[in-house]
Amino acid sequence: MAQRHLDPTDPRSRHAGPVPTGDALAGYLRAQATEFLRALRLHRETGSGAGGSEGSTDAARALRRSARRISASLHTFQSLLDTDWCEGMRPELAWVSGTLAMEHAYTARLERLLSALHRLSGSTALPGQTTAAAAGTRAGPAAGSRAAGAARVGGGGPPARAKPSVGEAPRDAGLPTDPTSAPERGNLTVGAAKAGALLDRQLNLARTRAHSTALQALGSSRFHAIADKVAVLASEVPLTKTASTTDLRPLASAAEGRLTDAVAALPLVTAGNPYNASALVHGLSPDTVPHPQDAPWHQVRLLLRLHRYAREAQRGEPNGNAVVDLRLLSAGQALNHHRDASEAAAAAAQAARTPRIAPATAYALGVLHADQRHEVEAARFAFQQCWQKETVSTS
Amino acid sequence: MAQRHLDPTDPRSRHAGPVPTGDALAGYLRAQATEFLRALRLHRETGSGAGGSEGSTDAARALRRSARRISASLHTFQSLLDTDWCEGMRPELAWVSGTLAMEHAYTARLERLLSALHRLSGSTALPGQTTAAAAGTRAGPAAGSRAAGAARVGGGGPPARAKPSVGEAPRDAGLPTDPTSAPERGNLTVGAAKAGALLDRQLNLARTRAHSTALQALGSSRFHAIADKVAVLASEVPLTKTASTTDLRPLASAAEGRLTDAVAALPLVTAGNPYNASALVHGLSPDTVPHPQDAPWHQVRLLLRLHRYAREAQRGEPNGNAVVDLRLLSAGQALNHHRDASEAAAAAAQAARTPRIAPATAYALGVLHADQRHEVEAARFAFQQCWQKETVSTS
Repeated sequence: MAQRHLDPTDPRSRHAGPVPTGDALAGYLRAQATEFLRALRLHRETGSGAGGSEGSTDAARALRRSARRISASLHTFQSLLDTDWCEGMRPELAWVSGTLAMEHAYTARLERLLSALHRLSGSTALPGQTTAAAAGTRAGPAAGSRAAGAARVGGGGPPARAKPSVGEAPRDAGLPTDPTSAPERGNLTVGAAKAGALLDRQLNLARTRAHSTALQALGSSRFHAIADKVAVLASEVPLTKTASTTDLRPLASAAEGRLTDAVAALPLVTAGNPYNASALVHGLSPDTVPHPQDAPWHQVRLLLRLHRYAREAQRGEPNGNAVVDLRLLSAGQALNHHRDASEAAAAAAQAARTPRIAPATAYALGVLHADQRHEVEAARFAFQQCWQKETVSTS
Repeated sequence: MAQRHLDPTDPRSRHAGPVPTGDALAGYLRAQATEFLRALRLHRETGSGAGGSEGSTDAARALRRSARRISASLHTFQSLLDTDWCEGMRPELAWVSGTLAMEHAYTARLERLLSALHRLSGSTALPGQTTAAAAGTRAGPAAGSRAAGAARVGGGGPPARAKPSVGEAPRDAGLPTDPTSAPERGNLTVGAAKAGALLDRQLNLARTRAHSTALQALGSSRFHAIADKVAVLASEVPLTKTASTTDLRPLASAAEGRLTDAVAALPLVTAGNPYNASALVHGLSPDTVPHPQDAPWHQVRLLLRLHRYAREAQRGEPNGNAVVDLRLLSAGQALNHHRDASEAAAAAAQAARTPRIAPATAYALGVLHADQRHEVEAARFAFQQCWQKETVSTS
């Protein structure tokens, strides 16, 4: 895990020290390539049976992680690198991380939807699921009661006092989130149970297919060619001649500028106004997924990631020692939740189109869809709150 | 309409002037009784055909309005009034206002649900419906763009700056709330259209029955007996011997205390935390309506009304010249929206239990139910915001 240094008082201090050049980029790329190879070795060692062991899941995550970082650096700092090599490498790395991501995505989506069905049925969510599926916008019971104690209305402070920061979601008594209560699986309604079974069937099928595709991909000659190129990159980065004297910062700033522009185009005023009900505006529209209104947020999610990786590279910090900006991280998490909830809502809507389902099943899927669209709205609100804090504290 | 005097800097100034006694109460009761008789005359003049003319609707509303005020005063200031008379009168007045309220409630519920179906389908809501059904938590397009302009993120202010007060809900571009666009009725999905037709049928049937019941009630000997008693009240209030020298304020304070206690028992920390998702917790539970978690909020709604009427009586202000506390009014409006959304959500869930409906209809009703439960949550948030403001500014 990355070691975290939080310096909220002066985020500009990241530019202190010597000017980062192409050499820092080369160091970063070598470290990421080494990490890629290490994860690949680990993945082969831990096996790759259907469902995947914990080790192979971790290894696949680490593979995706370094593939994303290499690909992002090739994008942001392309002018410092051999052009042909960059253009050949980037789509291949995107293919690797995209293919490996699918299995995990289906697993997480199913977990999120089943957890939501339990929550909506008033039954206790399975332990671990609540936090996994809803962390960030909804804290677990322990954090909730802690925050509730701290934020208890005293009647004294201004209205903003009770506002939680991202990741805090105080819950009062009366909700079935008592950490001591045992998980109950039995008390779903017929509709919720049938909806759960339907989603389980559909998403497990998709997950199994994704697993086979990933296995096939990892055994393909296309993947072996990529692994060979990454092995070369681990020792030799194809920098241009002028790269080692070129300042990385203007290129990193350009990445930040693209992010800032994209954020400025988001409907943040709406997002910052709780219960604006905009995420569900097309909840019953005849169009199939994805929601067009989600696209700019997904785009910002990608640009935020590019910005974050550009900062990592610019500092020349090897992986595992990166200085993490917690605000960027929580803004990114909000956008991840946005994406997850958006896709989960789409999966619920899609399942409702299954022919010959019972009305009770369809009703439960409708409630579930709307619930996930509201999670989309909640994630936008959380992002707006992070982003505003950032703007205020750096200006 | 009541003339509004807003004095947010010192709400305690309401206690200035001579001490209000039973005489002020008598004046208030006489005025309300006169108003009741005037509304009754108007109701008879405007006719009472099925569906009800606008005049008869207004008259019925005025009847309920004065019946509620008389009944509330009998409750709060019972110790100043003849006990037998009070005990005989109160259930009868409750019966009148309850019976007369049903028709309007079904009309408003249907309007709210159809408007929501249009909103969820991405079609423009019918003009007038948006504001009627959603004022308070969701402003209309004109108010929205105004507020959006005013609250545009400048990057300077603290997070609380962009928070809207109740009744403001800024919306950005990209939502189909352009005031110039014509209303479209044709673009509902099959499911939404069928759900709308089902709700229309069920709620119109209920409304027609409520109309007949109200007509029957107004023609009954029970009602005539009440009207006779109110006619006597308009000239002669049965005060106890000591009433005219008894201070009304301790009794009014007791009513306020009951309200404060009930509010303190509400989960306001949760409510003040946007997107806490607690209103939908039992969204799929097998229990039928009403939601048990809504009951304390409904209770606070009634206590808030008692408090408001006690303040009116204490000031001895005749109807039509009441000093309205805008914060109390907006807190009350939030609780009205809470009640309306809660009942609309229940109606959608109830409609989904209709045998032999299509899955698409059930799905639309599920989305609609969840949407209305989120309006419930939004109303709690709005109430919490009002209440906190009140606590802060009076402390």
